[in-house]
Parts: sequence; structure tokens; C-alpha cells
Amino acid sequence: MKLTTRPIDIENRGVLLHVGDAREISVRDGDRVEVKNDVTGESVSAFVDTTASLIPQGVIGIYRPTQVRIDVLEGAEVEVRPADRPATLDYIRKKMDGQHLTGEETLAIIRDVVADVLSPSELTAYIVATYTNPLDMDETEHLTRAMVETGEKLHFPSYPIVDKHSIGGVPGNKISLLVVPIVAAAGLKIPKTSSRAITGAAGTADLMEVLAPVGFTAAEVQQMTEKVGGVIVWGGATNIAPADDRFIAVEYPFKIDARGQMLASVMAKKFAVGANLVVIDIPVGEHTKVATVDEGRRLAREFIDLGDRLGMRVECALTYGESLVGHTIGPRLEVKEALSVLEGATEPHSLIQKSLSLAGILLEMSGKAAPGQGDAVAREILVSGRALAKMKQIIEVQGGDPAVTSADIVPGEYRFVVNAPANGYVVELNNRALITLARAAGAPQDQGAGVYIHAKKGTSVRTGEPIFTVYADRKWRLQRAIEEGRRLMPVVVEGMLIDRVPGRHWGVSGSPGDGVRK
Amino acid sequence: MKLTTRPIDIENRGVLLHVGDAREISVRDGDRVEVKNDVTGESVSAFVDTTASLIPQGVIGIYRPTQVRIDVLEGAEVEVRPADRPATLDYIRKKMDGQHLTGEETLAIIRDVVADVLSPSELTAYIVATYTNPLDMDETEHLTRAMVETGEKLHFPSYPIVDKHSIGGVPGNKISLLVVPIVAAAGLKIPKTSSRAITGAAGTADLMEVLAPVGFTAAEVQQMTEKVGGVIVWGGATNIAPADDRFIAVEYPFKIDARGQMLASVMAKKFAVGANLVVIDIPVGEHTKVATVDEGRRLAREFIDLGDRLGMRVECALTYGESLVGHTIGPRLEVKEALSVLEGATEPHSLIQKSLSLAGILLEMSGKAAPGQGDAVAREILVSGRALAKMKQIIEVQGGDPAVTSADIVPGEYRFVVNAPANGYVVELNNRALITLARAAGAPQDQGAGVYIHAKKGTSVRTGEPIFTVYADRKWRLQRAIEEGRRLMPVVVEGMLIDRVPGRHWGVSGSPGDGVRK
Repeated sequence: MKLTTRPIDIENRGVLLHVGDAREISVRDGDRVEVKNDVTGESVSAFVDTTASLIPQGVIGIYRPTQVRIDVLEGAEVEVRPADRPATLDYIRKKMDGQHLTGEETLAIIRDVVADVLSPSELTAYIVATYTNPLDMDETEHLTRAMVETGEKLHFPSYPIVDKHSIGGVPGNKISLLVVPIVAAAGLKIPKTSSRAITGAAGTADLMEVLAPVGFTAAEVQQMTEKVGGVIVWGGATNIAPADDRFIAVEYPFKIDARGQMLASVMAKKFAVGANLVVIDIPVGEHTKVATVDEGRRLAREFIDLGDRLGMRVECALTYGESLVGHTIGPRLEVKEALSVLEGATEPHSLIQKSLSLAGILLEMSGKAAPGQGDAVAREILVSGRALAKMKQIIEVQGGDPAVTSADIVPGEYRFVVNAPANGYVVELNNRALITLARAAGAPQDQGAGVYIHAKKGTSVRTGEPIFTVYADRKWRLQRAIEEGRRLMPVVVEGMLIDRVPGRHWGVSGSPGDGVRK
Repeated sequence: MKLTTRPIDIENRGVLLHVGDAREISVRDGDRVEVKNDVTGESVSAFVDTTASLIPQGVIGIYRPTQVRIDVLEGAEVEVRPADRPATLDYIRKKMDGQHLTGEETLAIIRDVVADVLSPSELTAYIVATYTNPLDMDETEHLTRAMVETGEKLHFPSYPIVDKHSIGGVPGNKISLLVVPIVAAAGLKIPKTSSRAITGAAGTADLMEVLAPVGFTAAEVQQMTEKVGGVIVWGGATNIAPADDRFIAVEYPFKIDARGQMLASVMAKKFAVGANLVVIDIPVGEHTKVATVDEGRRLAREFIDLGDRLGMRVECALTYGESLVGHTIGPRLEVKEALSVLEGATEPHSLIQKSLSLAGILLEMSGKAAPGQGDAVAREILVSGRALAKMKQIIEVQGGDPAVTSADIVPGEYRFVVNAPANGYVVELNNRALITLARAAGAPQDQGAGVYIHAKKGTSVRTGEPIFTVYADRKWRLQRAIEEGRRLMPVVVEGMLIDRVPGRHWGVSGSPGDGVRK
């Protein structure tokens, strides 16, 4: 059926049909149609909403993301017909039934994912099927290659290209802001793509955005890396391994992290930027993704195997994941802390040591440091100020102000201090709750929002001493964070009153003794 | 955040926010918000689309299905906030991890399904999880009860209430049009709810709609059944076990039919109408849902067990599912065939015998026929004209014309006959392909569309004799069906030329010898 296009400014990956036209071609809400641009001959698949009045018969409303895909002007003529059932649904069904998928089948699925041929529900079925019937290493390799294949790739003229990834799960993990300038200052190339926070308070891309723009094409990432040795950009803008964002959107509500998917997502991004030397940070701890050292070793072995299959050398670092890295959570707070270390601060120890260890591994892998000397070489680069100078080049090449200092970075003006309600030790500091607090305060969208932890787990505190401070850019956000804090009670001090009925509540002024309940 | 409502006539279960407002409350496209009607205090959960221009900041666009749920007037004020993550996602995750769900957890999931708290993707995750980690009989019972609980129920003052269900998979299965009037004519009550075709050419509801309206509330179904003994209505309008429609929408693309879901869906509908005597038709055959008699017996045992747990007596009939029932596929063609049998036709044997067998089981179960006499009693009711008289009452009570005869029912005016290309036997008649043909011709929406099979499998034909006729209400639909036929080649006659390169094609006139290819 020929229909005339009308753009509709709604962010939805579908099209809008008049009910009469929908009936005519026998499609219903949620069905898939194929829309063919009569001029270019290109087709896209899109899901149908219907209306009885918003558009007349003979017109098809093209929502914005669909408009981007099909690229037609208002009033153009398109051919619309019920879409064929994608063959990839049979492959997904096969995986549901516990069978193995071939490389071709996997590639076909990922192509359909990236081209929006599969609906979110259908993608969910694939993800759940691969979670309940885990991918073996062959399938994982196929998936990795398919994810690379369906996105942009970088092609550097010379090796080594190094890269670093943390599988996540530990808050305040701002080490990329130190690792990237250190290894780039050593003369290595590190085109670091990173993500925005999904469940966290700030992803590395959210952090870097405090200092410079982070949205670049793959070609720009390559040019900038060739120029100054390293970048820290948002992967979402590069269209590198774009299937990953779709996977994450589906996995997120269920908090699942199917092993094969995770391996493939990480390694596809490293492979696509052309990295041949890679270090993977695997935080281990009860509340992270990897609970035990044994489990961490198994996962490390899988990363290394997959790297071998792809021709990449991979080393893994099992790191301490029980406690946050440094003292800060939230974009400006974390950037301020990282910059101060580049500027010469000798604290916080946890942040400095972790950054040097990971940078050191890459320096050793690439021969920039002798075996066992990576840490020391990295420290020298940091202490000498070369890492800071390199960071300024990186900020400048990405379009930020290279003159920025940690003193320029000011966290949110609305603040609330939580003091120790009793003398004792901080026996519990719930990372997950602190992240929730930071998000309630507005992080990562509000860059000044976050939490500064004065007294980490194991620290002794006296009644009335500050344990942590919540920052917000907006007053109502601070209020919201305070409410969350009341509910979540992220800190327990040994000896403090855990509960009392009817419960006391936090004083908004943070008066001493007016602490948190459990 | 307070926003002012503006209804938007789009069939989509979400709301539309201005990007500015979305940013303000930190939600993105696809996120869930809670919308609270300030007047009634009631909240609904809805998924977010965003726009930069269609509505101003401060306004929330309420799509039609959401409007129905929240019931606010244009310009009303609502409170909108990011919705909490539903606890039921954790239960779904539990099932993904292979654990068993309790009755409470299952009920909570089904409540969220029916209230649209769960997105289609989240529902898909549940379905796939129950497919890959099948429900045990306890879980199946819980699911059945949850599906009943979350919908309408009928409460008849006296027993027995009988019901019949076919698990499907065999085309042309119009037997409900005979079984219902036969058992109702025997004095039994049979409030038959049925479905529309999803993948088929005509569901029982599509068939009955040729004769009378089929959309009634649960209360109306009960009243009409009490008045004339039986009805044949569309279950979708009754809000009986409404979760089932959601399940079907999700299972359909993958052609999966998770055993526990299927048992629960069937039995929930029977339980909700108050049936205590139920016969289940299980077609067995290579291309149906149940491939072997052994498998059919196992399924039968499960239906009977589940019935015992719910206090219902269930009998199952394993029936021949390899070949279509009668000669017709498509709404008017099937209704014409069924009415002609009620009017006294002694053919087609397959339709008459199957209908009498199933009606006979119900007559025996209810004591209206002595053991072993069900068939004969049913035949007497049919042959005597009492079934026809009852069918006219049913048509009348549902608002149709009781004077209708099979001669009044005319199939589509556009027709195409496929003739035998050679002398021989019909060795293959692909049911699935015939259904696709009927759908291409317009069934079930176009009531006159369908296929009449002159020569069923095993019949001998001579060159030029008709094998089947395709009917359509619209000329382009007939053309589409012809194209499908060329592609699908639904019939093979022994000795015919299976292929020839370059291939011949069907002549539109159906000239002899111009047959189908394989």
C-alpha cells in the first residue's frame, strides 16, 4: 500500500498508521511493517501504533528514530506492507530449546538487533535464552565477532594499541582518568571508549564530560588518539559494537549479566578499536559482580581464552571490590578527586594504587616497563607531572579547557552532612545504598550531585564527626536524597542504636547524634 | 512533578513527555513512570515516549489505552514520578535462575501483567523463563488460579456446566459450531468462550461472527447461557483470564507453547466460567502441536491432574490431526459447511464424526447419555433437527438473524481454481501452506476469503480436475494468494512434475495443467 509520509516528533522506534489503513493491510498494533523508500529503494522494518484521528487515511506517521533510519522527506511516498517474520526468530527459538547457534545464525541475529528488525521483546527472548542456556566459548567468539562486524571499527597504522576495561560493580571507580593519561604519556596509544552510568552514579563517560565533550565518531576517536595518544570518549556515540547498548537495556531491569554476553560485549569493544594489548579489571567482593577470587580467576581465564581466539593479549587484574575507590561518588566529586591526584595529591591511596597497578600492567605488556617494574614506571609518570600534562592534551583535543584545575571543579551547592551518632567503628558502608543516594541527589545528570565519604569502612569515628556528605545542584534533589537515606541507612557505626520504635528521623540540619537507622 | 493531561489518540500503552520534563525527573524513553490521578488518588504505571515539540513542557500526553486505565479528563492535573522497579522482576529473575515460584509470587506477576505494570519485554522474559525452566504441576496450578483471580468469573446457580476446548493445530476445526448446539439441545449449559485466529485462518470467534455478534461481557455471557443453554462468544471481550491474551502475543512470534502456560491458559478459562465437566480435544499428528499418541496421552494426563486439583472433571479426546476437518478454511466457507451439517447434510464425514464424538463425551460425562451411547445420542440430536433449532436460538440470543441458512452464506466473489497437473493421488496437502494461502486471500478479516479443498490427501485425481479453490472478497487479495500459492506449493500429486527451471507459473485463469510446483 502506498502511503504519504508525515514526520512525527516522538522518540519511538515505530510508525503510526490510520486504523483504516492498518485494517486494509491486516496489521494490528505492535505488528511489524516494512516501509520502503520509493526513491532510494531502501526498506526498514518498524512496529505499528494506530490512530483513528491523528492522521488521515493514506498518511503514515514516521516517528523520529524511524525517520533517521529511512530518511524520507515529509510528503514522500512510501510502500508499506506487513513485514515477513524474521528468520532470526527461529534461531532464537533454537537457543531457547538449548541448541547451539552457528556463527552465521548469531551474526544474523545481531544484524537484526542493530537494524531494529527485532522488537525489544524479541531481543529479550534472545537474552533470556542465552542466560538460561549459556553460550559456550565458540558461541561467545561468534557473538563477539558479530558485535564487531555490525558496528564501526578503528584501523590504526601501527601497534601496539592498548586498552583497559573494568567489568564494574564497585562505586567511585574513576581510575580511567588516571590510567589513560599515564599510559598515553608513556607513548602508548589508548583509544578508550567508555559508558555512561546506567545503574551507577557516574560512568567514565559521565566523568570525562565534566572536563570536555565526549561524543565523537569512530573516525574522530582515531584521529585524536593518533594526535595525543589517548582519548576518553563515550562509546555510545561512536557506533562501535552498537548491539551492546541494546543488550544492556534489556538486561538492566532483571539485573542479569549473562556471562557469554558480558565477555562478548567487553571484548567486541576492545577488538573493534584495534586493541592488541588489554587489561581487564575484575573487582572481587561480596557485593560486586564476582563474589569470590576463584570465580574471578575462572572469569579471567575466559577473557584470556577469548582474547587468544581473537588475536589479542589479555591480562586480568583481580581487584578489591568491597569498598569504593577513593572517597567520592558522582561526576564533579570524582573528577575533582582524580584531577587532584594528577596534580600531585598523595591521597586517596586506594585510587592511586589501583590506577598505578592497572597502568603498570599495560606498561609491562607493551615493554614500556620491565617485568615487575610497571607500578614504579607508572608512579614516576604520575609524580613527574607527565600524566597531568598528557591529561591536559587529552582534554584539549576533545575540546575542553586544558587550564582546568581540581580547584575549579565545584560540587553541588546544596549539602547535607551525616554525622556519627555514636563513638565506634564504621562497620558497614553499603555501596549500593550510597549509589542510590547519589542518584536520588541527581547524579549523573546533575554533575554536582554525589556523595563524599569521610569515614570509610573500618575507620574509627567519634560522636558528631562527619561520616559522609551528600551534594546536590538542586534543593529538592537534596531533599529527595535525604528521604532515600532515611530509608536505606547506608552506614552503621558499631555501638550505634540500630533501630528504635517509633523511629527517629534524620534532622535536615545534620545535627550531631541525629543519625541513621537500620 | 505535576503535569497537565492531554489525550493523544494513539494506540500505545504509554505516555508522552516533553524531553525537558523527562530530564527533570530523570527518565528516558522506555522508562516507567507512575501517573497518579490527583482526584481519585489512583495510580497507573506507563512507559515513556518523549518529544521536543508535540507537547509543551508541563503537559503529559496520555495515549488512548493509558487514558482508559487512568480515566482523567483533558486538562486534569496528574502527579508523575519515576516508577519503582516492580518487585515481580525479582520473581521473574528467580524463574530464569531455575527456581520455583510460590503461589503468591505467581499471582503478583500475573497481577502486574494484567495491570500493564510489566512491559512486553518483561513479560517475554517471564514466558521464556517458564519455557526453558518448565513449570511443575504446583506452579501450573498456581498460574491457573492466578489467571482466574485476575479476571472476570461466572457464577451459575446450578451444575453441571460443561465446556469444550481444542488445543488447536488442525485447520478447519469448526466443530464448536456443532458441539455447542448439540449439548445445549440436550439440556446442558455450555458458555463457550473462544478466540479469534492469531496464526490461523479463522478462530471459532471469527466463525460465529459470520452469524451474530460475539463481543459480550461476562455477565451477558452468563445471562444468555441461562436463557438458551449455550453461547459461542469471543473470550477477549469478556475479560475472563485476560492474562492469556498477553501471553499469546508474546509466544506467537516464536511459535512456542510452553506446556505449563498452555495448560494453565486453557484450564483457567474453563474454571472461570464455572465449568465442572470439560472435554479437551487434542489433535495428534506430525504437523500439529502434539506429534505422537504417547505425547498426547501424557498431555491428557496433565489436563486431568490439573482438573482434579481445581475440582473439575476433565476428559481428553485424542483426535486425528494430520488432515483438515471438513473441506473448508476461512470464516464464511467454514460456517456454510457447519450450518449445512446442522441442516441435515451427511457430509463431510470427518467434521460430523469428530463433532459427535466430542459432544458424545460431554453427554456421557453429564449423564445425558449412558456410557458408550454418547455418539448415538448426539447423532439423534443432530439428525432430528434439535441441534439446528438450538443453534438458531443461540444466534438469536446473540443478536444475529435466526432465519439464516447455509445457502445465505456466500464466499468471496473472486475465485481461483487449482487443477490437478497430472493423473494420480494427492500425496501431500500442506495444511500450514493452505492456511497461509487463506490468510493471504484476506481471512479472517475478509469473511469471504478462504480455501475449499476438493481433493483431500489420499484422493485420486485426474489431470484438470480441481484440487482446491481459493476465494477472496477483494481482487488484489486473490492476486496476493496466487503469489503465495506459487511460492508455497501446498499440494503435490503423485507423478506430477515437481520442478522445472525456468519455472512455469500459475495461470490466473486456473487453466488445466497449469498447476503448482514444488
